[in-house]
Amino acid sequence: MSAEPASRTRASRLRAGILITGTEVLTGIISDRNGPWLSERLIEDGVDTATIQIVGDRPDDLLAALQFMQAEGMALVVTSGGLGPTADDLTAEIVGRFTGREMVLDSGLEHRIGEILRPMMKRWPNLDPDAIRASNRKQAVIPHGATVLDPVGTAPGLVVPSLDGAGPTVVVLPGPPRELQPMWELARQTEAFRAAIAGATTYQREIVRLFGIPESEIANTLREAERAGLSLAQLEITTCLRRGEIEVATRYEPPAQESYDALLELIRQRHADTLFSEDGSTVDEQVAALVRGQRVAVAESCTGGLIAARLTERPGSSDYFAGGIVAYSNEAKHALAGVPEQLISRFGAVSTEVAEALAEGAASRFEADLGIGITGIAGPGGGTDQKPVGTVCISVCARDGRRITRRTRLPGGRTDIRERSVTVAMHLLRRLLQGESDAPAPIRRSRAADRS
Amino acid sequence: MSAEPASRTRASRLRAGILITGTEVLTGIISDRNGPWLSERLIEDGVDTATIQIVGDRPDDLLAALQFMQAEGMALVVTSGGLGPTADDLTAEIVGRFTGREMVLDSGLEHRIGEILRPMMKRWPNLDPDAIRASNRKQAVIPHGATVLDPVGTAPGLVVPSLDGAGPTVVVLPGPPRELQPMWELARQTEAFRAAIAGATTYQREIVRLFGIPESEIANTLREAERAGLSLAQLEITTCLRRGEIEVATRYEPPAQESYDALLELIRQRHADTLFSEDGSTVDEQVAALVRGQRVAVAESCTGGLIAARLTERPGSSDYFAGGIVAYSNEAKHALAGVPEQLISRFGAVSTEVAEALAEGAASRFEADLGIGITGIAGPGGGTDQKPVGTVCISVCARDGRRITRRTRLPGGRTDIRERSVTVAMHLLRRLLQGESDAPAPIRRSRAADRS
Repeated sequence: MSAEPASRTRASRLRAGILITGTEVLTGIISDRNGPWLSERLIEDGVDTATIQIVGDRPDDLLAALQFMQAEGMALVVTSGGLGPTADDLTAEIVGRFTGREMVLDSGLEHRIGEILRPMMKRWPNLDPDAIRASNRKQAVIPHGATVLDPVGTAPGLVVPSLDGAGPTVVVLPGPPRELQPMWELARQTEAFRAAIAGATTYQREIVRLFGIPESEIANTLREAERAGLSLAQLEITTCLRRGEIEVATRYEPPAQESYDALLELIRQRHADTLFSEDGSTVDEQVAALVRGQRVAVAESCTGGLIAARLTERPGSSDYFAGGIVAYSNEAKHALAGVPEQLISRFGAVSTEVAEALAEGAASRFEADLGIGITGIAGPGGGTDQKPVGTVCISVCARDGRRITRRTRLPGGRTDIRERSVTVAMHLLRRLLQGESDAPAPIRRSRAADRS
Repeated sequence: MSAEPASRTRASRLRAGILITGTEVLTGIISDRNGPWLSERLIEDGVDTATIQIVGDRPDDLLAALQFMQAEGMALVVTSGGLGPTADDLTAEIVGRFTGREMVLDSGLEHRIGEILRPMMKRWPNLDPDAIRASNRKQAVIPHGATVLDPVGTAPGLVVPSLDGAGPTVVVLPGPPRELQPMWELARQTEAFRAAIAGATTYQREIVRLFGIPESEIANTLREAERAGLSLAQLEITTCLRRGEIEVATRYEPPAQESYDALLELIRQRHADTLFSEDGSTVDEQVAALVRGQRVAVAESCTGGLIAARLTERPGSSDYFAGGIVAYSNEAKHALAGVPEQLISRFGAVSTEVAEALAEGAASRFEADLGIGITGIAGPGGGTDQKPVGTVCISVCARDGRRITRRTRLPGGRTDIRERSVTVAMHLLRRLLQGESDAPAPIRRSRAADRS
């Protein structure tokens, strides 16, 4: 949900449309990552994305979408895709037609594309050089008066202003994210782009994150804020549930700073125990910062490698990640992670006792400062009345004997349960690193792992 | 790229628009999964998705998008999101306005929603029951004459035909995928839906997959097919590169079966060594089928748990997944996976020799029939002239001494390199399971892991 400001206010803002082209995106073969990415970048420049539209490689559909965006008063349209060498790549041509600009060959650009293709022709010697030269030429035919963005891959981008100034400026970018993203930065530096977004508002953008409450509780807090007289109309608040965490994103113009501060204070008061980030930092970033100088090891069962994968996602994680064991079977839990067999037979493989032994075993085996142990039932099979699918036991431990252990029941299917388990483990690790512990000075038992 | 049939043919086809609502989707906070999913379902029913449009929670933008879809001649519009209890959830109301239908309270529905909310009110006793009842009532106000789809979560869906038959039928579904997906099946069973898609064409849909060639080679094959006189105009072909694999999806009406068969035969001839799936099956599905009765263990470095996570993604994977070791440090490679220290000091941690020792060590430690070993440089740091970032060594081995080992250099950033490594490993495992081996009867050396 989002608390929207009055639409009168919004009408004066700069609005943009994002147009994603490609039959493979439209038919669900690949999912679009450019729309959300561009939307976030536009917000940073003070431009509202009013719509993201995906169409296939059909000229009529492309043109209709551009005309719709003009009719809806967009100041800017950003397109992605359709710049390749094949016949169905027709974005440049359609944008030329839309802006009323003639298509002309840019021979300097033709030469630059040729230079880029040269090493590729060496690498795949079977390719037909004439066919390549023809497509190379096609990519150098651009709307007259457009600003060219040099290719990061092989496709050039374009910034195409409206001829009469009445329509939107169109930024034309290639589809692959690793080409689009650097070329977006090039586009921003052009005069044509800066002219198009002149007068954009500067927004403040703040994100807070909470873990462990339902989304409706935040809705209640917002209602409470309004009852308490806060003017939420000045704040554009979007709340969303992601991987089990609640993210509250707020955007506002600088004069609304006081309203935001008051809202943040209210969230702090009402949700002290679940608010974990006031500066937008993710739990991964917080763990990476808190863990400095220490090393973490994991022994996981139902998550099957996902905790290790998440901890090693960030560059430089080898500084703090010691290693991991994925122990599906009871034998592996015993032989590799050092879980005593009698613990498994007495409490079952999915138990807080085994989770603790896994955490301790991981820390011991990898000589790490911190250990994480997870065991659970991700389903769809394997559930019982006592331990239904979704039952997950997680423990984090430190060398000094501090420990946090939880048994929880997570909703959803196999993928949800596995992902959610990882999130819970990350939060327990964060809390342990922040000094929390189930018992301040737990009785040390001889480490399970030392015995095996 | 896609080889499109003439648009004249397409104009007679049933076209649909998908409208995704929600400021959190538009602003990039969460990425939409419903659009691609619905698009694939529509194709199964013979309906072409002409556009997927994402708009925020603004009445004017919702209405404009619906009107655009009507103007573009859509027979069907499917919406997702905006059915929640809060004030900004306004899809039902806007669809009522769009179809010219009065909003009426469905008291039977109000009662059913109340029943659904009862257990939730018990679970979160602090919630305000009056506020809940008010929002419950809001969700039961629907366009007159609409067919109600009973809630899977708390929000009901709707099928709303145009009043005069001139506009599209609108299927209104909630945003969470786990509610939307079952409710789509309910929608398909309604009379209103079947009336809207009456006359849809039945399509054949075939997918083939290749691994290890550039996408342009498939473009060449399609050109070759045309030169050879194949009528590709009857086939709608979409090729796309995903996780390093090429997917060629073809859709056609039944009379074009012969053309498709001829194209498939040409692909078989030209790409015998890289074509791995003719029936749309993924490498994961093939590995799961081939591995039956055997167990796999992994020891991975740069992929940090991702191979184990991918092998355990599927339900029932505990039948064939023995376990995994994530060994980042040289000490862990030695102590946990049994890689001889002198191998690391002689060839370096990133070497085919260490990859082989990791594979053998994993198989040995977990007493598995098959082992996978990976070591590489995912970056951004750690690269050298001899072993730049992206250098990855992968080995798969079987109990009987067969083995496939590769050293490769993968493009892209850290995430790409990690993901691509997993894909290469899956393909090597598939090939080993299909009976391939680097050497038919390799000289057995004493297993590295047995020595440690």
